[in-house]
Amino acid sequence: MKAVVFNKNNELKLVNDYEKPVPQKGEALVRVTLAGICNTDYEITKGYMGYDGILGHEAVGIVEEVNSDDKSLIGKRVVPEISYGCKDPECPYCAQKLYRHCPNRHTLGIWKKDGVFCEYFTMPTEVLFEVPENVVDSQAVFTEPLAAALEINEQLHIKPFQKIVVLGDGKLGLITALALNAQNFDVILVGKHQNKLDIAKRQGVKTSLLNDFKTEKIYDVVVEATGSVSGFETSLALTKPRGTLVLKSTVAATKEFNLAPIVIDEITVLGSRCGQFGPALRMLKSQKVDFSELISGVYPIDDAIEAFERNKEKDTLKILLKF
Amino acid sequence: MKAVVFNKNNELKLVNDYEKPVPQKGEALVRVTLAGICNTDYEITKGYMGYDGILGHEAVGIVEEVNSDDKSLIGKRVVPEISYGCKDPECPYCAQKLYRHCPNRHTLGIWKKDGVFCEYFTMPTEVLFEVPENVVDSQAVFTEPLAAALEINEQLHIKPFQKIVVLGDGKLGLITALALNAQNFDVILVGKHQNKLDIAKRQGVKTSLLNDFKTEKIYDVVVEATGSVSGFETSLALTKPRGTLVLKSTVAATKEFNLAPIVIDEITVLGSRCGQFGPALRMLKSQKVDFSELISGVYPIDDAIEAFERNKEKDTLKILLKF
Repeated sequence: MKAVVFNKNNELKLVNDYEKPVPQKGEALVRVTLAGICNTDYEITKGYMGYDGILGHEAVGIVEEVNSDDKSLIGKRVVPEISYGCKDPECPYCAQKLYRHCPNRHTLGIWKKDGVFCEYFTMPTEVLFEVPENVVDSQAVFTEPLAAALEINEQLHIKPFQKIVVLGDGKLGLITALALNAQNFDVILVGKHQNKLDIAKRQGVKTSLLNDFKTEKIYDVVVEATGSVSGFETSLALTKPRGTLVLKSTVAATKEFNLAPIVIDEITVLGSRCGQFGPALRMLKSQKVDFSELISGVYPIDDAIEAFERNKEKDTLKILLKF
Repeated sequence: MKAVVFNKNNELKLVNDYEKPVPQKGEALVRVTLAGICNTDYEITKGYMGYDGILGHEAVGIVEEVNSDDKSLIGKRVVPEISYGCKDPECPYCAQKLYRHCPNRHTLGIWKKDGVFCEYFTMPTEVLFEVPENVVDSQAVFTEPLAAALEINEQLHIKPFQKIVVLGDGKLGLITALALNAQNFDVILVGKHQNKLDIAKRQGVKTSLLNDFKTEKIYDVVVEATGSVSGFETSLALTKPRGTLVLKSTVAATKEFNLAPIVIDEITVLGSRCGQFGPALRMLKSQKVDFSELISGVYPIDDAIEAFERNKEKDTLKILLKF
C-alpha cells in the first residue's frame, strides 16, 4: 500500500509498496479516506523525536475488517484516538482511559505504532469512534485537535464568569478559541494575523490583534498556543494572580527566561495535550463549530511530500491528505 | 531606633537613629523581640528587586500601641502577616484576605513598607496574629515560612494515599517536609546534605540523599525547593503524568530548558508563595513540628551585618536577630 514514511535515515518518503497491516486480536483494519497534517508530524521530520515509520495521527476512515467476535464496526466511518494502552488491569492510566499516559502505550505515527498517512491502519476497536452521519470527512478529520482543545475543560473548571485569552492564531489557537466560544465561555483570541483572526470572528469569537491588545494581568485563564518563548512570557503577563496559564504548545526555550512570576503571583501552569473523542464528536455533530475555513489545501496521497512542504509555509493552516 | 536598612545606593547598613514609626488609623505599633533572615532578604541586598528601606518580614513582637478604639491587642505577643491590602470593598483579593495579591498592597521589607529588622514596626491590626502562650519566640518566628509551607494544602487537594517528594533540604524544603509530615501525608525529603536531612528524620520524616534516590516518574506531588534549574528539571522527571509540581522557590533560569514535558505529561506546575497564619499558628501550638534545630545562629541587632554575612554561608539554615 502507499504510505508516507519517515525512515531511519531521517528521510521523508512516499513508499508505494509498504506492507498492508493485519489486525491483531481486538483490532480493526481501517481504510483511510482523509488525514490531516499536524505540527507534531512536522516536528518528527526534524529527526529529534526518535520515531521512524508511517507518519500521521489525524484521520477518518472506513472499517473493513474486525478481528473479534463483534463485527458491528465493519462498514462504519470512524476516527481513531491516537494512543492505546497496555490494558493491564493494574494500570491506573488505562483504568481511566488515559491511554496517552500509559507507560506502555502505542501512539499512531509518534511512538511504537505506524501512523495513518497510508491506505490502511489498524487500531484496537475501543479507541475507534464512529462519526455521526451529519459530520462530513473534512470536519471529522479535526476530531483529534478539537478533542485536544476540549481537554482544557476536562482538566480545569472554568467558571462561566471568568475571562479567557487564547494567545496565538494558528490552528491550535483557532480551534481552541472556537471550541471555548461554542461552550459559551467569555473568550478572546489574540494573534498577529488579521486574516486568521477573522476566521474565528466570523463564527462569533471576540478577537484582537496583539498590537491592539492591552497587556494587563487580569485574565483568569490564558491559553498559550504560540509555541514561542515570547508567547509564554506574554501569557504570564496576562494571567492574573492565582490564575491559570494553559500550556497547549510545546515551548522550546531557546533563551533564558524567568519562572519567578509563577511563584510570586501563585499561577498554575497547566500542561494540556490530547483529549477524549466523545465530547469532540458531540460538538461536531451539533455543528456549533465549523473548521472549513481552516483548510489551506487538500493533496492526494501521491503528492504527500509536496503537502508537507506546503505545511511548512508560514500562512498555512490545515493541510489534508486525500486517499 | 536601630534599623537594618538597604539604601538607595544598594548598601546594607545598621542605622542607629532611624525614625520610630507612628501607627496610622487602624494600625498597631509592635516592639520587635526576635526576627528571622529569609533568602528573600538576601536577594533584595543584590539590588535588583527595586526595594530600599528597612529589611525583614519574619518577626515576633509585643504590641505597645493601637491607633483605634479597640485596644485589646496592647501587650499581646504577635506575628505579622507580611502584606496588607487596599481594603477597597471592590478588591477581589482583599475580599478573600489574599492581601499579597492586592495590586495596591504593601509588603513588609519588600514593597512600599519598612520591614521588621528594627526596634519597632507598624501594621494594620487585621494582619497581626496573637501567638499562643505555649509557642516560644524562637518557634513563633517561623510562622511565616510555615504558613508558606501550608499554603500548598490551601492551593492543592492532596489525597491521603498520594506520594509526595520534597526536593531540596534547605530551610524551605525542611519546613515544607516537616509541615506535610505533621499532617500525615506520605512525604519523602530528598536532598544533598545528610546533616540537614537528619533534622527532618529525627522528627519522623522519611529522607533520602539525592544520589541514593531513584528518578522515577511516579510521584503525585513534587515540591521544588532547591531554587536551581537542575532542581526544576529533576522535579519534572519525578512528577507522574497528570501530577503536580509545586514551585516554591523562584528558579532563576540561567540555561535553556525544555517545558515540553509539562505538556506531554500534562503536568500542573503550581506557583506557591505565602500562606495564611491561622493554620500555621495552630500547628505550632500543637507542637507537631519543632524548628529549634533549624536555627544556625542568633545575633544581637548590633551585629546584624555579621548575621547577614553568616546567612550567605552555604551550610547555614535560619539566622535570627535578637532585640
